[in-house]
Amino acid sequence: MRRQACIIGGGVIGGGWAARFLLNGWDVNIYDPDPEAERKIAEVLTNARNAYPCLFDAPLPEEGRLRFCAELAEALQNALWIQESIPERLELKQQIYAEIQAVCETGAIIGSSTSGFTPTDLQIGAAKAGQILVTHPFNPVYLLPLVELVASPATSADTIQTAREILASIGMKAVHIAGEIDAHVGDRLLEAVWREALWLVKDGIATTQTIDDIITHSFGLRWAQMGLFETYRIAGGEAGMHHFLGQFGPALKWPWTKLMDVPELDDPLIDKIASQSDAQSGRYSFRELEQIRDRNLIGFLNNLKSYRWGAGAFLADCEAKLAQENQLPPLTALSDTPELILTHKAQVLPSWLDYNGHMTEFRYLQVCSEATDKFLILAGIDDSYIATGVSYYTVETHLRHLAEAKLDDKIEVSTRLHAHDLKKLHLVHEMKRDDGTLLATAEHMLIHVDREKNKACPAEQSVLGRLDRLQKAHDKIPAPEYIGRHIG
Amino acid sequence: MRRQACIIGGGVIGGGWAARFLLNGWDVNIYDPDPEAERKIAEVLTNARNAYPCLFDAPLPEEGRLRFCAELAEALQNALWIQESIPERLELKQQIYAEIQAVCETGAIIGSSTSGFTPTDLQIGAAKAGQILVTHPFNPVYLLPLVELVASPATSADTIQTAREILASIGMKAVHIAGEIDAHVGDRLLEAVWREALWLVKDGIATTQTIDDIITHSFGLRWAQMGLFETYRIAGGEAGMHHFLGQFGPALKWPWTKLMDVPELDDPLIDKIASQSDAQSGRYSFRELEQIRDRNLIGFLNNLKSYRWGAGAFLADCEAKLAQENQLPPLTALSDTPELILTHKAQVLPSWLDYNGHMTEFRYLQVCSEATDKFLILAGIDDSYIATGVSYYTVETHLRHLAEAKLDDKIEVSTRLHAHDLKKLHLVHEMKRDDGTLLATAEHMLIHVDREKNKACPAEQSVLGRLDRLQKAHDKIPAPEYIGRHIG
Repeated sequence: MRRQACIIGGGVIGGGWAARFLLNGWDVNIYDPDPEAERKIAEVLTNARNAYPCLFDAPLPEEGRLRFCAELAEALQNALWIQESIPERLELKQQIYAEIQAVCETGAIIGSSTSGFTPTDLQIGAAKAGQILVTHPFNPVYLLPLVELVASPATSADTIQTAREILASIGMKAVHIAGEIDAHVGDRLLEAVWREALWLVKDGIATTQTIDDIITHSFGLRWAQMGLFETYRIAGGEAGMHHFLGQFGPALKWPWTKLMDVPELDDPLIDKIASQSDAQSGRYSFRELEQIRDRNLIGFLNNLKSYRWGAGAFLADCEAKLAQENQLPPLTALSDTPELILTHKAQVLPSWLDYNGHMTEFRYLQVCSEATDKFLILAGIDDSYIATGVSYYTVETHLRHLAEAKLDDKIEVSTRLHAHDLKKLHLVHEMKRDDGTLLATAEHMLIHVDREKNKACPAEQSVLGRLDRLQKAHDKIPAPEYIGRHIG
Repeated sequence: MRRQACIIGGGVIGGGWAARFLLNGWDVNIYDPDPEAERKIAEVLTNARNAYPCLFDAPLPEEGRLRFCAELAEALQNALWIQESIPERLELKQQIYAEIQAVCETGAIIGSSTSGFTPTDLQIGAAKAGQILVTHPFNPVYLLPLVELVASPATSADTIQTAREILASIGMKAVHIAGEIDAHVGDRLLEAVWREALWLVKDGIATTQTIDDIITHSFGLRWAQMGLFETYRIAGGEAGMHHFLGQFGPALKWPWTKLMDVPELDDPLIDKIASQSDAQSGRYSFRELEQIRDRNLIGFLNNLKSYRWGAGAFLADCEAKLAQENQLPPLTALSDTPELILTHKAQVLPSWLDYNGHMTEFRYLQVCSEATDKFLILAGIDDSYIATGVSYYTVETHLRHLAEAKLDDKIEVSTRLHAHDLKKLHLVHEMKRDDGTLLATAEHMLIHVDREKNKACPAEQSVLGRLDRLQKAHDKIPAPEYIGRHIG
C-alpha cells in the first residue's frame, strides 16, 4: 500500500520534498494558495525526474500520485508526513500548525523546512507540541541527502526514530542536532561565509567571480568529501589534531579573525553584487545553471557511492534497499524441456544511457553477464560451491548489437547452453525487449578454474550432471546461424 | 631544456610545491635545515606521484631531478621560481628574502605560501620589493589547482603575468586578488566557518562528526562545482539575484548572524575537539585519510573535467596542453607513424570489482568503449559532427579476457585501426596494465549511421581522409593472430 505525504507550501523547497516522496512511491497532496504553485512544482519535478534516478543502479518504485488540493483539510487526509515550507514568519507558521493539528492524524509527523527557527519557537501555542519537528533540507532537495533534524524536549525518542526512518525511505539522511539554536548548524556556517564574502565584495578585494573561483578550486572540493574537522585533522599531519589546534590558538587573536560586524546590505552593495553575478553567470539561464549543478552533483555522488564514502555511503545503503525491494522473480530450475532458459530481467536505468539517450554499449554486457551469473547459480555454482576454491571465469565474449534499448525498456535475457565439456562452457544469450525485439546476442566461453592455482580444472560431478541433462534438451533446439561468427 | 625551481621550507606545503614542479618536468632544489625534511618530502612525493597523473588523459613530461641542498645559495642556483613556505613569522620571512635577494637571479620570482601576510608586509626592507609575491596554495597542493596571487603596487604587470604563466605550466590556476588584506580571501572564508564551528562544538550543539556530516552531505557538494554566489543565484530562481539579495537584508539583522566573538581555544576546548575527532576519524591513519581524500578529489576533478566545468575547465586546458606537448598524437592530424594510438587510461575503481576482488566482466567493455569514444573524437567525430545527425554505432564486439585486473590497477588502452571503408570501422584495442601485462583485447565493428533514418551511410570526407592516412600507417604494423577469431 502506498503512503501519503502532505506538502504545505510549494516553491523550490516544497517542490523538492514532493519529488522525494513521489519518486520513492509515496502519494503526495500539495496545499499552496499561490496560483503559480502548480507550474513551479511541475518544473522542480521535471528536474528531479531527470536527476534523482541517476543516483541508483536499481529501479525506483512506481511513482506516487500527485494531487493539488484547494483546502488544507483535504490535503491532510491520511497524511503520515506533513512538510511545511512556507515563508520564514514565525506567527504564520504557528498559525498553520494550529490549523493542521485540528485535522491531521495524531501519529503524523509535522516537519518544518525552517532554516531559522527552533522547534521550541515553532511549538509555542501548539495543541500537541511534540508532533512538530525541524526537518531542514538543502537545495536541491531531490539530490542533496541532508536533513537537519532538530527536536525540542517535547518530542519523544520514538517520534525522532520514526522521522529518521521515514526520511531514510525517501533517500534522505537525518542528522540529529543535539541543541536548539537559531539557524541550526548548516546555515550558521553558511551565514558566516556570506558575511565575510559581503565585506570582500563591498571593499573591492574580490568580485563574486573571484570568490567563487577560490571556493570551487580549493576548499569546496575538499568539503564535498571531508568536512572542516577531518580536513584539518589531515592538515595536522603526523603531529595530530592536538598539535594542529594548538597552532590555531594564536591565529584566532590575529586582527583578520576579528572582522565581524555585518556590512549594511544596502542598494549600492546589492547592485554591485547583482551586476558582478551577471558578469559571472549571466550567460546561463537559471534553468541551465540548475541542470549543470544537478549533473555535477550526480557525478560527485556516484563517485562517492562507488567508494561508499561520505554522502555516497548513505546512497549505497539506499540502493541496496531498492535492489532488495525490487527482487526479480525466483529462478526456475534447469529443466529437460528444449527451451531457452529465462535467466535475467532488467529495466533500462537513467544511469545506463549515453548522450543519445540509448543504452551505452557496456551496459549490454552488464545485462548479459548478470544472465551468466544466474545461469551458473542454476547449474549449482552458488556461494558454497565457489567457497571450495573453484569457479567459472569468462575468457571470451562475442556481442552483437542489433537494436537500441531506451530508458525504461524492459529487457529479458534467455540462455542457450550451446556446448560444454569437463572444463568449458559455451553459453549463448538472447536479449529481447518485452515487445519481442531482439536487442543483442552474446556468446560467452567460460573456463572452470581452480582459483588458487589460477588454472583450468574439471567442474564437480554435480554440476556436470546438471549441464549434461540440459545439454541434451538444448541440442534439440536448432542452433542460430550467428553462433561461432567472427568479426570481419 | 628543463627549468629550475627552488623550494625553501619543506613540510606538507613545500613538498606539494616540489611535487608540482617535478611532475611537470622542472628540476627542484630544496633548502630546509629540518633533518626530517627529506623523509617528509619523500612521503608527499609518493602521494603526489600516485595521484597527480590520474588527473590527465595525457602523459606528463619526464619527471625533473630533485636535490636537497645544505646551503641556501646552492639551492638558489639558476632558479626561475623560488617558493618560500617557512613558518608564519614575518621577521623570519623578511630575513630569508634578504638572503635570497643577495644571491638569486634578478628575473626570478619569489612566491610566498603565506596564508596571512600581505605582500606589502613581506616586502618591508627588501632590496627589490617587486620580486616578492604572495602565491598561496591549498592542501593538497599537488591536486588542488588554486593559487591566490596577491601583489603589492611594487610588482609590475609583467611580473604578475610571468608568475601566472609559470603557475599554469605546473597545472595551477592563479586567481589574482585585487586588494591586499591579511589572510587574502580563501582563509578569510575558512576562518569564518572555523570560528562558528568552534562555538558549536564548545556549546555542545554539534560534534565534529555532526558538523562534518552536515558539510559533506549538503553545501560541500555544492561548493565543489559552484561557489557561494552562483549557488545563491540559483536559489534566487526566476526572481533573480536582486530579489534574492533583497530577502537576505533583513536576515542579516537577525540575532544568529551576530554571534561573532572568537571563543577561547583553551585546553578544555582543544581536548573536546581532539577527542571528538578521534571518535570520528581515528579508525583511519593520517596516511589513509590522505589517500582517501586524494582518491575522492581525483574522482571529482575528472568528473568536472569531462564537462569542462569549474576546476575541471582549467584541468581540461592543462590536459590539452600536455597532450600537445607530449607524445599523444592529436588525431585531428592523424599521425603517419606505424604505432598503436594510446586512446584511454583508467584506474580500477572499487565499484568495478566482483566478489573475487577482480574487475567485473562488463567493466572491461566499459574501458574499451571509452577508448572507442576517444578514437572517434580524435578522428573528428566530435559533438559538432554528431550534431549533423550522423555517428558511428558499435554493432559487434569480440572480447578476450586474458588476465585479471585488480583494485587500483592502472590500465592503458592502445588502439589499432584494423580496417575501414566508407561505412565501416574495424578497431582493435589492447588493454594493458602499467606493468605491461596484456589484460584483454577487444575487436569492434562500427557502422556509420544516419541517426534519423537509422540506416548506414558513408562518413564525411574529412573523417575518411584522417582514417585513410592512419590506415596506411597501421597497415605497416603486423596484425596479431587473434584478429577475426571466433568462439568455439
